[in-house]
Amino acid sequence: MEVLHPNVRNKCEGPGRPANPGVFLDGRAGKGDTCSGEPSIDFPVSVVLPAGGTGERTGLHTPKQFCSLLGRPLISYTIQAFERVSWIQHIVVVVAKESMGLMADIIQRFQHHKVLVVSGGSTRHRSICNGVLALDEEGTAPDRPRVVIIHDAVRPFVEEGFLREIAVAAKDHGAAGAIRPLVSTVIATTSEGFLDHSLERAKYRASEMPQGFTHHVIRQAYQRCTEADFEFGTECLHLALQYCGTNAKLIEGPPTLWKVTYKKDLAAAESVLKESLSESACMITGGRTAAAALAEAFQKAAGALHMGLDPIPDVTAENSRYLLKESNFIQVSINGHCLSEVEALIKALEEANPAALHPLVIIWMRVLTEDEASDSSTAAPTSALLDMASTAKLHQILLYGIQFLQSKDSERWQRSVTRAAEITRTLIRERSPALVGQLLQA
Amino acid sequence: MEVLHPNVRNKCEGPGRPANPGVFLDGRAGKGDTCSGEPSIDFPVSVVLPAGGTGERTGLHTPKQFCSLLGRPLISYTIQAFERVSWIQHIVVVVAKESMGLMADIIQRFQHHKVLVVSGGSTRHRSICNGVLALDEEGTAPDRPRVVIIHDAVRPFVEEGFLREIAVAAKDHGAAGAIRPLVSTVIATTSEGFLDHSLERAKYRASEMPQGFTHHVIRQAYQRCTEADFEFGTECLHLALQYCGTNAKLIEGPPTLWKVTYKKDLAAAESVLKESLSESACMITGGRTAAAALAEAFQKAAGALHMGLDPIPDVTAENSRYLLKESNFIQVSINGHCLSEVEALIKALEEANPAALHPLVIIWMRVLTEDEASDSSTAAPTSALLDMASTAKLHQILLYGIQFLQSKDSERWQRSVTRAAEITRTLIRERSPALVGQLLQA
Repeated sequence: MEVLHPNVRNKCEGPGRPANPGVFLDGRAGKGDTCSGEPSIDFPVSVVLPAGGTGERTGLHTPKQFCSLLGRPLISYTIQAFERVSWIQHIVVVVAKESMGLMADIIQRFQHHKVLVVSGGSTRHRSICNGVLALDEEGTAPDRPRVVIIHDAVRPFVEEGFLREIAVAAKDHGAAGAIRPLVSTVIATTSEGFLDHSLERAKYRASEMPQGFTHHVIRQAYQRCTEADFEFGTECLHLALQYCGTNAKLIEGPPTLWKVTYKKDLAAAESVLKESLSESACMITGGRTAAAALAEAFQKAAGALHMGLDPIPDVTAENSRYLLKESNFIQVSINGHCLSEVEALIKALEEANPAALHPLVIIWMRVLTEDEASDSSTAAPTSALLDMASTAKLHQILLYGIQFLQSKDSERWQRSVTRAAEITRTLIRERSPALVGQLLQA
Repeated sequence: MEVLHPNVRNKCEGPGRPANPGVFLDGRAGKGDTCSGEPSIDFPVSVVLPAGGTGERTGLHTPKQFCSLLGRPLISYTIQAFERVSWIQHIVVVVAKESMGLMADIIQRFQHHKVLVVSGGSTRHRSICNGVLALDEEGTAPDRPRVVIIHDAVRPFVEEGFLREIAVAAKDHGAAGAIRPLVSTVIATTSEGFLDHSLERAKYRASEMPQGFTHHVIRQAYQRCTEADFEFGTECLHLALQYCGTNAKLIEGPPTLWKVTYKKDLAAAESVLKESLSESACMITGGRTAAAALAEAFQKAAGALHMGLDPIPDVTAENSRYLLKESNFIQVSINGHCLSEVEALIKALEEANPAALHPLVIIWMRVLTEDEASDSSTAAPTSALLDMASTAKLHQILLYGIQFLQSKDSERWQRSVTRAAEITRTLIRERSPALVGQLLQA
């Protein structure tokens, strides 16, 4: 077993680390601390993530845990789901020997800081066992985990509350596992390929991940199990029952525990991520009255499209927190084109997010008076915008422009605002790298 | 049981019906006839599609079979998958009483022509039974199906080859059903919620849809089964075994049989559809030499993005078949803006596809000489394009524009062509209604 350590282990938890490194389904972005009202976990918990699969079922060349979603490998999202939980100590990622270098790059690039990478065995159980053994070698006895959580690298949407339930049940009962209702009826076949009998759906459950074990139980299970178990077994809960006499506590998990199995699931996962990234935006008005009036109209139009909007005058002082917590920015420009404001915003975002975990969006909203529209000296700065967008894209910032007339005709004005909101919603939702730098008409 | 008939039944198979009404995964677009090499089905087969579900698992207000994918309800895709199979006679769709009107609208709007709508019962089995009985009432005995295929309305990607396998096996053995390997281990729980035992995964299979039965077997099964079966049963194969002594033949199906269950699955289904719609485009050059040279460069750039490109001079005579078989059109315009060519293309598409089953894309590719670019009389026809696009959108045609310089600097020219291909790929892939009418810079 090869252990990448301490090189791969990344200790960077310094000020360069953004407080909100990514996307979480429950909206509690970046909160590593304990949820209010929930009991704290006062015993050490570590995680083993087997990620040695070849992903043949996706029909892709890349194993699915390394497939990219919004420019970032799936496994990085799963690691992040555990890293943000304050009471989780170490995350052992078990990968195939040939993926060790790739995994080290991912850890470096996305600044993961609780991860230890070890090389996998020839089967799933051998890989998990390697991961558990690596935890033993980590530090001295008092540092050893009381509970080990085992999870799949391809189930990125696991949430803290459910991990807590699994950890507590594992400590109390020796083992615990997530279950879900069966989606299909399960049937037994005859050797000739005919129906033998079908199982009564209500009596059975699908066994899912995560599962939790006391360190003692999972170690003992692997010490006692046979070569046949290592070779053909799939279910850790079964080993705990057979070799330690531990009946796992089963807990019904949320549908978000789903596993990325096929190519279509990658599209579904990307859609879930995009949805959670596009729920809100902040609109920077520069404190100007005309912009504030636009913000009010735009807020209504965006609301009708289920997108929240926070109007703020700028991103300084107290509002600088938006640089860390928001993923979408609309910079309003009324009277003159003022790409300099956009430039300043890009710089502020780059400084606040040196290692952005997902693409940020800036929309430059240029509102022209009717006079300006007919004056050729205020022609659209098309190539300046394209150039600025090309550079920003290198830093994971996607810049687009929307322009429209500040018409005195209120019906026409309302139509433009509605259209601008629709375009904004689409640009933020799709996050298309190919469309950056375009100045769209609303 | 309420039967919508003959009003809902739509007999329009006339010349207004496009030969290629939609999207098929196997690339054999619109072919209703038998695949070469496959044995023909020489006995009558009809289909029952239970679609009375409430879709509570998607977490949406609309039952999932009525959720819209690219502007069309999921169930319409499933119906289409059966309609295109020449040897399938009738498709009985069983919906909740309150959805009868909605279903009638869908049939009218998308010109489905083999469908009979009946109202469902209070459970899945009662609904399927209603569907089977409706087939009995349909015509006289010789017209009755020899085999009845039962499928889920929310599995839209079923293919002809697999339906053939199920139909033949059902005729030979009385019953047949699709199976898939289990994705998760199945476990039995104790009454206190602990693990009792896990099933050996290799011995069991997930029972999926479609299933096929001889008309005799499925009728007899429903005549003999109990109220408890009607109330709590889920598996038709089980009824055939218990009440007719028929052991169904089980056939491993492809992964494309998956079922839209959760909200994320709708995103996955839409992604599959978008992928299949964006594999190719045809580029209309007008027969001009400069445009043909562009087409050659563009073909290479598109190929690098895995998009096929057919350059054609126009869509008249033999090339008019593209109006029916292609979903994406690039109209090249060199020297002058020529929106009139786009207008003619829109008209031709509307005439060829009076009831388009998915949005078609037209990209107007405007190439400017350096002289034109600096001449204000050739300013971009921004509002004309926006207006034309708004009108076209009403007919399911999404019009976008891309403009770039025909630079003498070959490196710059190549960069523009590459960028134009990337933008084209994105517009065709995303099919965003909010971005129609925009003139993008490449």
